[in-house]
Amino acid sequence: MIGEIIAIGDELTSGRIANTTSAFAARQLFATGYEIYAMHTIGDTPNLIGEALKRAIRRVDFVIVTGGLGTTTDDLTNEAVAEALDRPPTLNEKILEKIRSQLQELDNTQSALEKLAWLPEGAEVLNSNERIAGYMLVHESTPIFFLPGVPAQARKLLVDYVLPRLSGWSDNSRNHVRLRLYRTVGLPEYEINQRLAALEQQEHVDIGYYPVDCEVHVSLTVSGSDGRQSDQLFTDMDHCIRQALGGHIYGTDRETLAQVVGKLLLKKSLQLSVAESCTGGLIGSKITRVPGSSDWFAGGVIAYSNLLKEVLLHVDHQLLTNYGAVSAQVARAMAARLADRVGTGISLSVTGIAGPDGGTEEKPVGTVYIGLFYNNQVKETLHHFNGGRKDIQEMAAQTALDTVRRALLAE
Amino acid sequence: MIGEIIAIGDELTSGRIANTTSAFAARQLFATGYEIYAMHTIGDTPNLIGEALKRAIRRVDFVIVTGGLGTTTDDLTNEAVAEALDRPPTLNEKILEKIRSQLQELDNTQSALEKLAWLPEGAEVLNSNERIAGYMLVHESTPIFFLPGVPAQARKLLVDYVLPRLSGWSDNSRNHVRLRLYRTVGLPEYEINQRLAALEQQEHVDIGYYPVDCEVHVSLTVSGSDGRQSDQLFTDMDHCIRQALGGHIYGTDRETLAQVVGKLLLKKSLQLSVAESCTGGLIGSKITRVPGSSDWFAGGVIAYSNLLKEVLLHVDHQLLTNYGAVSAQVARAMAARLADRVGTGISLSVTGIAGPDGGTEEKPVGTVYIGLFYNNQVKETLHHFNGGRKDIQEMAAQTALDTVRRALLAE
Repeated sequence: MIGEIIAIGDELTSGRIANTTSAFAARQLFATGYEIYAMHTIGDTPNLIGEALKRAIRRVDFVIVTGGLGTTTDDLTNEAVAEALDRPPTLNEKILEKIRSQLQELDNTQSALEKLAWLPEGAEVLNSNERIAGYMLVHESTPIFFLPGVPAQARKLLVDYVLPRLSGWSDNSRNHVRLRLYRTVGLPEYEINQRLAALEQQEHVDIGYYPVDCEVHVSLTVSGSDGRQSDQLFTDMDHCIRQALGGHIYGTDRETLAQVVGKLLLKKSLQLSVAESCTGGLIGSKITRVPGSSDWFAGGVIAYSNLLKEVLLHVDHQLLTNYGAVSAQVARAMAARLADRVGTGISLSVTGIAGPDGGTEEKPVGTVYIGLFYNNQVKETLHHFNGGRKDIQEMAAQTALDTVRRALLAE
Repeated sequence: MIGEIIAIGDELTSGRIANTTSAFAARQLFATGYEIYAMHTIGDTPNLIGEALKRAIRRVDFVIVTGGLGTTTDDLTNEAVAEALDRPPTLNEKILEKIRSQLQELDNTQSALEKLAWLPEGAEVLNSNERIAGYMLVHESTPIFFLPGVPAQARKLLVDYVLPRLSGWSDNSRNHVRLRLYRTVGLPEYEINQRLAALEQQEHVDIGYYPVDCEVHVSLTVSGSDGRQSDQLFTDMDHCIRQALGGHIYGTDRETLAQVVGKLLLKKSLQLSVAESCTGGLIGSKITRVPGSSDWFAGGVIAYSNLLKEVLLHVDHQLLTNYGAVSAQVARAMAARLADRVGTGISLSVTGIAGPDGGTEEKPVGTVYIGLFYNNQVKETLHHFNGGRKDIQEMAAQTALDTVRRALLAE
């Protein structure tokens, strides 16, 4: 089955908001074995919405529409559907009832919320238990799913309702698709492409290359009508890719570098701490986004000013004046002193020049030292990153995490 | 002039990567006075690319295409254009020369890079000085801009080359558009909608509402053929919106909360420090993304474990055992002790339960205390945030920054 995704909202066509929901939906659908023919983004203009919907119904097997289901005056999806597919707005008593009880709760009598109860004729509400807009319509035997524009809500409905409904729709006709994403650090895209070029010739195999910040993600897709054959081919290809890229692969699929580092630390019962200067908390933020990170992450110091490097990390004042805050000596001292102070078995430090100002001829913007205390030894590496402030901070943070990963794997 | 944006790449239709470039392009174009009719995302399939391109040329005044210009085997945009618009691949000698000199530099003789030198007939290279793919074609008098898929490169070309070229194209026919985005915290979307509902009736005025994490962004668009009239109407509407939303507006357009806080701190010559538990460095990371933040931000402590709260922040052990790490007492102590230790005039602390585990009946997931030391006083506030771990961390970080903003404005 092939689908199309239509995202609606002036906030999207004017670029005020990035459309993360369509990408999420595409990822889920693709991983489940559906193909996405195209994704469209159009403004809050009823006739454009109707046109896009009718064209999609003609050429694909299912359609997902997100956005424009809310209470504000610029939410026009239902009107557009009613008009384009000739399905007059019909009052949904259950929703109305729920809204009325909610209004009492809120002690708020504005009737704008009642708009939510008027749906195109034939609409089947997806989640009738919660306060989430979203319904399904079957038009000329094509299922169309309407989801809210709020990403978290759309994602919930997609996973809990849309995918199960779709899978019932298409039991027999589906292609077997095996997909894996390899996340790599430390190799340029063209080098990876060269190492994998021979594999691309293989039938039923598709390999894609995606640079993301300082990483390159490689996708392997194996498809075919025979499930067992696809599985075997997938296993073979997986082996070849791992051979070709080795330790540059840090993880697969949605695994982040922080998650991988966490698993390695847990295995060795180690606690990590970080001393961040130019990354300003970014490493800690990536780490603590991982649920359960408190099992292997103690915390650390955002040693942004020199004073904090001295007061909280006990970095020697003389070291800072002699070598400067961005130096091998200070990077080493930051990691070692932090480990000393908080007693973690492994400590990471980052000090560098993220720009746009602060660069010198000797130490241009992008100069970053990463220090690592581990096994009672302290080492440091020097890096030169390109790009804007955000790029440099991102690359410094990811490279620092990768430094920990490689140190733990080296043993 | 009305345009269409086409993004190309299997990484987009399979959802492996979010398409941030189209949103950026749309924002830039919209702010410059162009309208975007639609944005499309299609896979690396030459005939789909050709189809989308031909349809766009027929219905809009300019087209922007991103992606598929690279060296790897799945980069097929040039082939698709050559075929669809009947413009055979033509060798660009200047690019070839540059690639050859680059190859020597890299000591790398693979010829895949030479692919970059073959462009559709009539292509005019946009930036001939740097190593960035990207060109312009005029087809049936419609300008088409081809940009690389790498966001940073596409953005650079768009701002430096595409916008200037477009502006020459359309000098007389353009509509005058005034646009402002108001960024608010602390009011729900429907409340904002209600306060501004009357303004929406005004002719030539468009108001949009966009919830983003815990913020709501409100857009004001005033358009018309008479520049002076539009300016006046825009000034009037701006005044009305500021009246209606008051201090809930923290900034406009692309200003972040961290930037606004920084400006206020600079004005008062104050330094800020942060003690982050459940946000784990996110506040520091948002702050240090702002260029020049070292002028007003000292750094702080990622006090993730209780040990670090004691060792680095000198929070009393008794306090932690008596009240727990997530408590008003500990939030206050974290802010006050940090200010004490590093001597900043204002210190912020966050401690809470981001989940998914760790919640109790008394302190469920989403419970967050924010502490603030300022003017030699320490205060704390209690919040209950909804959503997943990432949502709770984001809301805690933004609310903490807003706490600083409100404290500084209160005087």
